[in-house]
Parts: sequence; C-alpha cells; structure tokens
Amino acid sequence: MSVYTPVSEAELASWLRNYSVGQLAQCEPIESGIENTNYFVTTSQGRYVLTLFERLPAEALPFYLDLMAHLARHGIPCPAPIADLSDQYLGSLNGKPAALVTRLPGRSLEKPGAAECKELGALLGRMHLAGRSYSAYLENPRGPKWWRFAAQEVRGFLKKPELQLLEDELSYQTQQRFPDLPRGPVHADLFRDNALFDGVRLCGVVDFYFAGVDCLLYDLAVCANDWCLKDLEKDHGLHPGRTGALLDAYHAVRPFTQLEREAWPAMLRAAALRFWLSRLYDFHLPRPGMLVHAHDPEHFHHILRSRVAAPAPWMA
Amino acid sequence: MSVYTPVSEAELASWLRNYSVGQLAQCEPIESGIENTNYFVTTSQGRYVLTLFERLPAEALPFYLDLMAHLARHGIPCPAPIADLSDQYLGSLNGKPAALVTRLPGRSLEKPGAAECKELGALLGRMHLAGRSYSAYLENPRGPKWWRFAAQEVRGFLKKPELQLLEDELSYQTQQRFPDLPRGPVHADLFRDNALFDGVRLCGVVDFYFAGVDCLLYDLAVCANDWCLKDLEKDHGLHPGRTGALLDAYHAVRPFTQLEREAWPAMLRAAALRFWLSRLYDFHLPRPGMLVHAHDPEHFHHILRSRVAAPAPWMA
Repeated sequence: MSVYTPVSEAELASWLRNYSVGQLAQCEPIESGIENTNYFVTTSQGRYVLTLFERLPAEALPFYLDLMAHLARHGIPCPAPIADLSDQYLGSLNGKPAALVTRLPGRSLEKPGAAECKELGALLGRMHLAGRSYSAYLENPRGPKWWRFAAQEVRGFLKKPELQLLEDELSYQTQQRFPDLPRGPVHADLFRDNALFDGVRLCGVVDFYFAGVDCLLYDLAVCANDWCLKDLEKDHGLHPGRTGALLDAYHAVRPFTQLEREAWPAMLRAAALRFWLSRLYDFHLPRPGMLVHAHDPEHFHHILRSRVAAPAPWMA
Repeated sequence: MSVYTPVSEAELASWLRNYSVGQLAQCEPIESGIENTNYFVTTSQGRYVLTLFERLPAEALPFYLDLMAHLARHGIPCPAPIADLSDQYLGSLNGKPAALVTRLPGRSLEKPGAAECKELGALLGRMHLAGRSYSAYLENPRGPKWWRFAAQEVRGFLKKPELQLLEDELSYQTQQRFPDLPRGPVHADLFRDNALFDGVRLCGVVDFYFAGVDCLLYDLAVCANDWCLKDLEKDHGLHPGRTGALLDAYHAVRPFTQLEREAWPAMLRAAALRFWLSRLYDFHLPRPGMLVHAHDPEHFHHILRSRVAAPAPWMA
C-alpha cells in the first residue's frame, strides 16, 4: 500500500474545517499509487480524494492543480480541486502539501475494446482543445532531459543487448526534432488504470501528476502503447482496430496535421522509451520507503523492441 | 412555458463546437422560470443547462457566472458554468447572451420537514463562508432602492389597507439600518423550488440570477418565509421546529452575532416586503411577452402582515 503519511480521522475532520465541504463522514486509504498518499474522503456534502504530495517538487503542484481546475471548468471529467476558505487549492496537512479534489465515479477497464478506445480518443481531443487556453508552463518532467538522467543511472544494470537498444534509441531520438508539432498540456500517463468508465462511457480521467507541456501527439502515443497492444502478454504490436478507433475519434475533434502522421512511429518509440526508462529506474534504484512493487521493466523493453523492429504505420 | 428565444438542434449543435463537452445528444426546453430561456442539454460528455439571458442587465452576468464558478470550486453543489474554448463563461446564441452550466441531480420538495431545513441551514452557512473570498460586487438588485421604485409603480393598484401596510413598512424599514451585520454574496431567492434533494440530502442549489451582496441574514429570512411557514395556505406564522432547524444548522457552521439575532424580526419583514412588491409588480405590470402566470401577490401580503402583527422571536 502507499500511505506514506498517515492521517487520523480527528486530524482530517479538523483540517476539513478550512473547506466548505461539510463534515467528515468517512475516510479510507487508497492502496494503489506510488508517488503520493491518497485517501477517499466522504463528507456530508460529497465524495472527494485527499492527496498528500510526498515527493513531487512543490513548485510543480500549482501547475497540476490549476490544470485540473482549468480542464474541469471546461467540462472535462477530471478531478476538480476544491478551494479552501482562503481560496487556495494547495494546503498543508501533517507537514505535507495537500489537496482535496472531487472523486469521480466509474472504474478502470483491463481490456478495453475499440468502443472504449474511441471514447478515449474523443476525450483526449477535447482535453487538448480545452488545454489550449491554459497558460501555465511546466516542461514534461519525463521528457528527453530526464531520459538522459535516467539512462545514466541505469546503464550499469543492463546486459549488453539492452544497453545497445538504449543507446541506439537515445541516439535515434536525438535526431528526431518536432518543433512544428502542435504542443500543449498533456496528461502523459493516461494508462488504462487512469481512465474511469461507466459502462462504455468514459466518465473520468485521473492522476495528472505527470502532466506537462509537450507534443499533443505524445499523449496518443502513451495511450496507444498501453490501450492498443495486440496482446498484453504475447504480442506488443499495435492492434489496428483499437489504434484506428483511438486516432479516428481524436481526429474528428482535433484533426491531425500531416507532420503528426509522419512523426507517429518516432513518437510511439519515444513513449515506449520513457516508460522503459522509468521502470528500469524504479526497479534498479527503488527509493527508500517505496511501498509498492516496481513494475517489471521487461514489458516496455518488449514494446520498444517491437516499435523499432516494425515501425507502426499510421492507422487512422 | 418560458422559451422566449427558440434554439434549434442544429443551432445548438453548432454552438456547442465552441465547447469541450462533446456532441449534442438531446435538447429539451425547460417550462418553468420567468426571467430566462432555459434548455436541458445532454451531450456525449454530460448533462447541462443552457440559459439565454432575456432581460438581466448584461453587466450583471459576469457577477452571477463567476459567483457560481467560485462557489462550485469551493464544493458548493451549485451549477458550475462551463468555459468555452476562448476560456469564457459568457457566450452569445441567437442574439442573446448565453451560458452553459452543469445540470444538477435531485428534485425540489413541496413540503420540506425539519431534516431538510437543517440541510438547507448547513448549506447556506457553507455557501456564505465560501462566498467570503469572492471579491466581485453587485448590489442586491431587489434591495431597498428597488423597493422604492416598485412601490411607486404599484401604489395606484392598491386598496387603502394594502397601501397603508406598504407605506408603513417602507417607513419602518427606512429606520432599520444594519451597517454592522455580516455581509457577502447572498442567493436571495432560495425558495423550495431552487433547492434539489436526493432523498434527504440537499444536493443542489440553483438559479443565482437574483444574487447580490447584502446582509447574510437576509438569505435566511428569505428561506424562512418560504420553507418554514406553519401552513402554506392557512397559517403564515413560522413553524418553530423547522425555523429552529434552519437557524441551528446554520449557526453550527457560521455562528450568528448578537446583532443578527436582534435584526431577525426586521429582516423577515424586509424579505416579505421584497417578494410582496415583486409579485405586485409582476401582477399589475406584466411585461410584454411574459409567458408565465404571475404568482398571486396575496401570499406575501399575508406573510408580511403576519410578521408585522407577531414579530418572530429568535428560534434557534
């Protein structure tokens, strides 16, 4: 479980007096998640998630909270931060920066089909359009600079073929420059477990704490590498039907440019590289006090190999 | 019905492309309401209310929309305005100022009991606390200045005893000055039909288009005169149990000052006078094109007489 900072009911009830959300009815730790301490909080007013930020840089928190607030008031179904009586989203609880956000209904799906990928593509398109009027800036915290830092840290743990793949990919990506692709705030971590469905309706996108400003196409590449695999265990190629549904639905909301179509194979490789590196890093260099088992890096190793061996065609 | 400005599905579908709320699925005119044209709007994303502002002064609209947005982000269950792709709450549709807000669940109650009055009191308290950090200003549009305007217009229609009551009350209220009562944004029209319940839980407060800055106690007086009558038809006195529940629950969130307790009888009279006057005005001077039958002014005539004859004690 991932409760790094315990919060008692009495502490929470007292803290909630800074807010207009009524009285505490129930409080339940959330077991999943790696980066933060999270609680489900129910009050006489509604259902919320309390997050204590354990290691995100404090200066990045306003970017995340204001982005969620921005998207929520544009109608995007994401957690809406609740302002306290001093009109602030960011508070402090038990020595940690803390925020209260709305809790969304729905549940994540393990095996989304084409209909769900279509929902995802449409919502990503709407989210990117709504994000255009968001003016704050934060560089994607897991972008190329971070790749180089992480590669330096994990090199020593890799066998020769993996090391070769890593060096080749870093070198390849250095040659990929996309200054003319549409950019804006991206979620950058919209895996299946961060999307909540009510039936076939996508009714929630959560966990914006890897968001940043990057190529919009990067969000689609991250999604495709998780939502659209032919087979989660055995075949890391992209399923044409689901990938096509994702891209088509997005295109209907925000039409792709020709440059984006051309950049697609490289973008899928960049997204695979980013998650291979972070999983290698968490696997070989677990942080003290890390309470959740690191994901197996092999999964994204396979995905990257697959994207390199068979560059994905444009599937829309 | 009160659709002054028709909007076709094609017009609406096209207009919604300015927003991030998905595609139009359904659109249904709302029959109630007097001041504006309203539609229930369902999209692939969610449920909304579209309002075309028919006669509210354009300069007041940002006060209302920003107030709702402010309260919503503080966790108050009120309609949250949706920002368009230019990041604006206020748009224009078929020549009228227009806004899209979230549609809340629940339904209004005709005969609330003490439990519902308690819910209302607690929510009003939270709303007033959350409103403290709202910095925009709009004078209560139905305050003393407007009473004098409306009185001038309706005098000629009144019989002698009514005229006497009106003049006496205006004269009495002129002597009531409450410069030291806590002030802030008030809903000022929170009748039973503007409160939505899900079971006994108050899950929505709607129709902020009479809001303004005034004494906070005025909101409670408006509510008491509608929610807490002993009998809607026969006895216009205040029901001690329901009035006490309203005031006690509010007090637990925002404690009353001694001055507020002392001002209570006069505030109840002011709230009764305001609605008697507006109903007299709408009854005798219906606006051209007004499509809803005016409320009978007699109801608030009786309430005012009752408050004058038997000044309400503090019931908390």
